[in-house]
Amino acid sequence: MEHTLAEIAKRCGGKIHGDGNTLIRCIGTIQHAGPGAITFLSNPHYRRYLTNTRAAAVILSPTDAEICPVPALVSENPYVLYARVATLLTSTVSASRGIDADAKVNPKAKVSATAWIGPGAVLEEDVMISDHVFIGPNCVIQNGTSVAEGSRLVANVTLCHDVQIGKRALIHPGVVIGADGFGFARDGEVWVKVPQLGSVIIGDDVEIGANTSIDRGALEDTVIDNGVKLDNQIQVGHNVHIGEHTIVAGCVGISGSARIGRRCMLGGSAGVVGHIEICDDVTVTGMTVVTHSIHEPGVYSGLMPMDTSARWRKNSVRIRQLDELARRLITIEKKMKD
Amino acid sequence: MEHTLAEIAKRCGGKIHGDGNTLIRCIGTIQHAGPGAITFLSNPHYRRYLTNTRAAAVILSPTDAEICPVPALVSENPYVLYARVATLLTSTVSASRGIDADAKVNPKAKVSATAWIGPGAVLEEDVMISDHVFIGPNCVIQNGTSVAEGSRLVANVTLCHDVQIGKRALIHPGVVIGADGFGFARDGEVWVKVPQLGSVIIGDDVEIGANTSIDRGALEDTVIDNGVKLDNQIQVGHNVHIGEHTIVAGCVGISGSARIGRRCMLGGSAGVVGHIEICDDVTVTGMTVVTHSIHEPGVYSGLMPMDTSARWRKNSVRIRQLDELARRLITIEKKMKD
Amino acid sequence: MEHTLAEIAKRCGGKIHGDGNTLIRCIGTIQHAGPGAITFLSNPHYRRYLTNTRAAAVILSPTDAEICPVPALVSENPYVLYARVATLLTSTVSASRGIDADAKVNPKAKVSATAWIGPGAVLEEDVMISDHVFIGPNCVIQNGTSVAEGSRLVANVTLCHDVQIGKRALIHPGVVIGADGFGFARDGEVWVKVPQLGSVIIGDDVEIGANTSIDRGALEDTVIDNGVKLDNQIQVGHNVHIGEHTIVAGCVGISGSARIGRRCMLGGSAGVVGHIEICDDVTVTGMTVVTHSIHEPGVYSGLMPMDTSARWRKNSVRIRQLDELARRLITIEKKMKD
Repeated sequence: MEHTLAEIAKRCGGKIHGDGNTLIRCIGTIQHAGPGAITFLSNPHYRRYLTNTRAAAVILSPTDAEICPVPALVSENPYVLYARVATLLTSTVSASRGIDADAKVNPKAKVSATAWIGPGAVLEEDVMISDHVFIGPNCVIQNGTSVAEGSRLVANVTLCHDVQIGKRALIHPGVVIGADGFGFARDGEVWVKVPQLGSVIIGDDVEIGANTSIDRGALEDTVIDNGVKLDNQIQVGHNVHIGEHTIVAGCVGISGSARIGRRCMLGGSAGVVGHIEICDDVTVTGMTVVTHSIHEPGVYSGLMPMDTSARWRKNSVRIRQLDELARRLITIEKKMKD
Repeated sequence: MEHTLAEIAKRCGGKIHGDGNTLIRCIGTIQHAGPGAITFLSNPHYRRYLTNTRAAAVILSPTDAEICPVPALVSENPYVLYARVATLLTSTVSASRGIDADAKVNPKAKVSATAWIGPGAVLEEDVMISDHVFIGPNCVIQNGTSVAEGSRLVANVTLCHDVQIGKRALIHPGVVIGADGFGFARDGEVWVKVPQLGSVIIGDDVEIGANTSIDRGALEDTVIDNGVKLDNQIQVGHNVHIGEHTIVAGCVGISGSARIGRRCMLGGSAGVVGHIEICDDVTVTGMTVVTHSIHEPGVYSGLMPMDTSARWRKNSVRIRQLDELARRLITIEKKMKD
Repeated sequence: MEHTLAEIAKRCGGKIHGDGNTLIRCIGTIQHAGPGAITFLSNPHYRRYLTNTRAAAVILSPTDAEICPVPALVSENPYVLYARVATLLTSTVSASRGIDADAKVNPKAKVSATAWIGPGAVLEEDVMISDHVFIGPNCVIQNGTSVAEGSRLVANVTLCHDVQIGKRALIHPGVVIGADGFGFARDGEVWVKVPQLGSVIIGDDVEIGANTSIDRGALEDTVIDNGVKLDNQIQVGHNVHIGEHTIVAGCVGISGSARIGRRCMLGGSAGVVGHIEICDDVTVTGMTVVTHSIHEPGVYSGLMPMDTSARWRKNSVRIRQLDELARRLITIEKKMKD
């Protein structure tokens, strides 16, 4: 499907620079895009490719537009505009609707006539599937769980019982939502299971990456608010609350009952200990563990720096002597004062 | 289903304080519980809610019982008693038994008449499923694997060939048990696969969280002893041995041939390097890597402390100078001595 | 199936020491092997078991051969030779070919007559399955994806659309290949999804461990080269490139657009930040984060050392004072100079 640059500007925004009748068919990178492709320039690192680009058009900032050799779509936030244009050019409306002959839908489940239930998917009692929902192959949705309008479970997703998924969710393969939280009471040397009686509530416009797990609450619910984006291989413990528009990178672990504010960003492999609170607008860099509540917006870090192993060995030995070294420094300071 | 407080005390333990005929129907939190609900007080942080609780009854310690405004069930370990009461009030006996029409059971598999095999589950040759086992939707159980009495595989669990699961296991979705361990021999620049010929033996009363992986042994078996509790997203390498009643939090990685003792506790995202031994009763705090064997019970840590990024940058630069700084300190000490 | 030691040497290599007619039936450890078993000695730690071994034969180095009490197969690299012998003695050729009655294969998928498609597997449109491929139970292979000769998907593997898997891949349960990369553009407080238009290209002889996720590229492809070995629970972000014969241990996270060279080794739970480059022949030890490009082969580390919690508490407080302590040391040095 072809669009003119003017049509794209009309539907996605941006100011046209050059010929609005330029035809656009596809997307490319600024280095490799060929005829018919639109590309974007957002990272200044790639500006050097601009003057020789063979793209049909470029999405870029007002400043870069001045040196752009081809037609352009100009925006103060070219990456967001690119995201919109790429969505327009590449989104395919799934024509599928109905229930595949190889899906297993319990007679007490309610499925919208505009939804698609793929082969091998299992829907148990009292499941509710709303309009335009896509349930991919081999997904399992257990008793009493609901999935709201326009959500998409790609394949092999497991939603345990009584979970609520909001509108327009995108849930990737291997995700498990609503497994029991990790709750045990110690009785001598034995651990007694504490029943996990809460559920999981996922808001609207949430994306959840491959093989991520979100546990159900112990008594009240685990809550993921609107617009949250979770990457792959993340662990969200029971009764966690993640605020609106917070974004969490891969391999992060969030322990039980932690509360994370709105518009936070957690870097890859970061951790959050249980029962603490992080206020709105906090950024935690990768591999950092949040060990106590954060009450001030800002950027927080705690990553051991990488070095050659030879130097690391010498320095890491000193870490284990650090308190002693500090005391010896203080002793010297005292002596010199005397 | 309703119970009197007296019935509950009879079945679960605890001493009644107040009216034993109080009717209990459900569970609630101390802040939000309403009529008919029983709640508990274990964490002193929540004591402030006790005097105004609207719960029908509270499970608590002898000390707290004195200021409890409603009937109570008193125990030295109220959290364990709560776990038992909650289990009594909420456990539902699954009436399901038999093999779902959409399960695929090999004729050479043996399935107890009291077990349930859900839709989409695949049981290969020589699988043995004992009494009252629940195999949820889309689970895969490969050749020669056995699951003992009362175990429950929630959904989408994969048990590879020749694995043994003990009694009353609870295995959450996405778990993989018995995939090949990571064994390769280096031949020039190429890695040659070392066949993984051992298996995995899981004891009784083990719980395994969502998306956790436990590899089969290289020559002998990977062993998880009775009463072990594993959280989500854990990686257990080949030939690991985890002792009885050890509990492991989410995202922990345990490398091959590590031996972990009994009653240990590993915090979230901790790691254990291969071929080392951890004795009984060791606690490892979150994000700590156990790099050498531990022979003394106790608590071990190794987490880089979190700070604001501005301060972290300054301090982490110094970590890379630490050995040099220590040497300069020693030089000063010598000079001052002279 | 029995083999003589001479037959084994002929097919796998190694020099016979002792009786070449010794019959070998199985594999064992040097401590526990019994009659008919072949074992190996590679790790010097196990040399003490050699003189009393009850194995029928041992694979070992020329030096160890001198003190070996039983027939031996001698090689400069006994572990590699063992890997070959174990493969010979234990590999079972799957007789299965065809499409199980409970598989769901789209009429537009192409499946070789020598491939096996297991029960519950779902193959969508334009999937191509080559000769001798094994697709285990409940795997999902989405539109346009191809799997080359001799590859094996054990069970419950998800390959998203338009992915390419090379020859002789071994992919363990729970693996997800080709889910959307984590790409969002920030528009005020909202994150706008950036369509992920690239794919994943996996070379030949790649092994991928349980519950590992490999994301598709944003515009160009994520590439895993020939001979790469990935352990369990690994996260590979979009547009990552991993060079030939690199080996990655469990729980590693590799962020988007990182390029990792050939013959690298990444230890367990290590991390690689986005958009950086690691040259060939780099080893990164466990739990170390590669925060900047590495241009020199060698070993790199960045692990906070473990200690008792009591000592760790004292030392970790000092880490947060480290820059200040260093400045005080410099002040003293100046004063002493004056």
